[in-house]
Amino acid sequence: MALAFHPLAASRVRIAPLLPAAVAPSSSSVAAARHHRRRFSVVVATAAAAASASATTEFDFKAYMVERAAAVNRALDAAIPAGEPPAALHEAMRYALLAGGKRVRPALCLAACGIAGGPEAWAMAPAAAVEMVHTMSLVHDDLPCMDDDDLRRGKPTCHVVFGEPIAVLAGDALLSLAFHHMASVGSYPPDVDPEKHPARVVRAIGELARCIGSEGLVAGQVVDLEMTGTSEVVPLERLEYIHLHKTAALLEASVVIGAIIGGATDEQIERLRKYARSIGLLFQVVDDILDVTKSSEELGKTAGKDLASDKTTYPKLLGLEKSREFAEKLLSDATEQLAGFDKEKAAPLLHLAYYIAHRQN
Amino acid sequence: MALAFHPLAASRVRIAPLLPAAVAPSSSSVAAARHHRRRFSVVVATAAAAASASATTEFDFKAYMVERAAAVNRALDAAIPAGEPPAALHEAMRYALLAGGKRVRPALCLAACGIAGGPEAWAMAPAAAVEMVHTMSLVHDDLPCMDDDDLRRGKPTCHVVFGEPIAVLAGDALLSLAFHHMASVGSYPPDVDPEKHPARVVRAIGELARCIGSEGLVAGQVVDLEMTGTSEVVPLERLEYIHLHKTAALLEASVVIGAIIGGATDEQIERLRKYARSIGLLFQVVDDILDVTKSSEELGKTAGKDLASDKTTYPKLLGLEKSREFAEKLLSDATEQLAGFDKEKAAPLLHLAYYIAHRQN
Repeated sequence: MALAFHPLAASRVRIAPLLPAAVAPSSSSVAAARHHRRRFSVVVATAAAAASASATTEFDFKAYMVERAAAVNRALDAAIPAGEPPAALHEAMRYALLAGGKRVRPALCLAACGIAGGPEAWAMAPAAAVEMVHTMSLVHDDLPCMDDDDLRRGKPTCHVVFGEPIAVLAGDALLSLAFHHMASVGSYPPDVDPEKHPARVVRAIGELARCIGSEGLVAGQVVDLEMTGTSEVVPLERLEYIHLHKTAALLEASVVIGAIIGGATDEQIERLRKYARSIGLLFQVVDDILDVTKSSEELGKTAGKDLASDKTTYPKLLGLEKSREFAEKLLSDATEQLAGFDKEKAAPLLHLAYYIAHRQN
Repeated sequence: MALAFHPLAASRVRIAPLLPAAVAPSSSSVAAARHHRRRFSVVVATAAAAASASATTEFDFKAYMVERAAAVNRALDAAIPAGEPPAALHEAMRYALLAGGKRVRPALCLAACGIAGGPEAWAMAPAAAVEMVHTMSLVHDDLPCMDDDDLRRGKPTCHVVFGEPIAVLAGDALLSLAFHHMASVGSYPPDVDPEKHPARVVRAIGELARCIGSEGLVAGQVVDLEMTGTSEVVPLERLEYIHLHKTAALLEASVVIGAIIGGATDEQIERLRKYARSIGLLFQVVDDILDVTKSSEELGKTAGKDLASDKTTYPKLLGLEKSREFAEKLLSDATEQLAGFDKEKAAPLLHLAYYIAHRQN
């Protein structure tokens, strides 16, 4: 979770450690927008650097992430009983769900609730739910009949440890648990608005459900599987389809759900949706760049894997330099959407965007 | 879907074609309760016979089921776009979902909404959702790594036609679609109470989610798989666990969800929950009895399959006569819960209980 410079930002000048989102004036002129964007792409590198020097900045991103991850892990741990029957099922669910990970999606959900003005605690149940959905998709995608992966985060995958039937069923159970968790009154703190809260929860559940099926994760996996094993180069449009569905859809839902629960207006929700779509795609472009530019040691997984497996990536289609430019554009598109929100409340989402752009693994 | 006498009721005397639920006086004395139960088990056979002679009865059960199934099929058909990408996924979802079937769960959901006083149309989205969940559980249970079934209702199973990866993903997509459908404002008619409706939907979604995972369908399948291939006789308690989770949980949720959407009071919901638990178990006991007493031709599937596969069933554990008695008790337990509701509004649930008890396949 270290915040350091990503190669795409390496040549940038370090300037004042500002959080630019709220201080940048909004403007409708194209020239101003272009200036604004340039300004952001400079500040991006800076703020990330600033955030890593936590003691001297206004917002301690590392502490934020560590605290949120710990809280989410507690919620996830409490959501699945250990040892209760059927023991094998619960054990498999816990194995997959509590295997670590950065909890980026829950953090986005909590931060979006905060930027919308709600106490982050309101979004703890949805934050846990999006992680359950994420885990479920990993468990099913790893199955022998899918990507057939034996390792995940350096540990044997769920079906390797518990067998294929339990892995399929643990995924199903995690998916339903996500909705159960979101729908349970007991998952929310008592200070939610009793009149507005149910309608917000219904809307948030609709968002979560939509990003899983034939408009989201599943659609992305289907098209990804169709591309696997073919020697043809995947066209850029198809590559973007896969990533928008397999990766961006759940990141988008995480942000939008948090915003809804936090009481965002429709206009705010749409701005945050745009923010999330940009960082969703950014997430994948950066992944592709890292695979080319980093060593296995730095990544914590096999580098050059995409190249070796003949997988279509952004660097392969666009070249490395253009991929970096695309990543920069996505980052500035994302952070631009945060202008106009309260500066302090926008800090977590702003830093999450920097983090996604500048992560080293 | 023909309503005829089931062997367990064959020796009963036919008396007046009454719908007994609402006219039966409730009593707290044990003797009265016993009398009440006896009365029911007599009337049960009669009312079922009466219902089959539709022209002369107050309630035309056959027409009710045919109309409801048609409406649910229309809703299911509209819920999944044909031909839109990813085409293989949508095709697989439609293949599994629109393969026919009696639509008993949706009918229970609609009827429960009606008994609670709501227009049945309010529960059309949840009714479609429970069928999506049911279908998803069949698709995943049929997988090669699970029950490895090649045929379902006389047609090749989903993974046989579309391959294993698509079958897993189609199940996931159906599961998320169920929640999306329940959470979408557009799934409900405009006359729902704008103030009470969102809270009812949240509660209903919680019920649906709970019956799928480690407290419902999935738990039942896990324990069922654990029992498969062992030569030991499954104890009655374990058999009941499997059936309560694999079969009864979703029937219970179907009823309870309909009741919630229809505006039932908590006390009514609990009575309907008891009704549903009884018919859920009844459903399975009758299945087991039919396997022993009917020919393959009558069943539309291989008779004696349970015996041949060494599967533990109620007749095997209790004997045929005691199994019939148990079925009768479950039926009278169920119908008893309907006393006190409006007679006309109770008719569909009452007849659904008879139907489940007396079906011939």
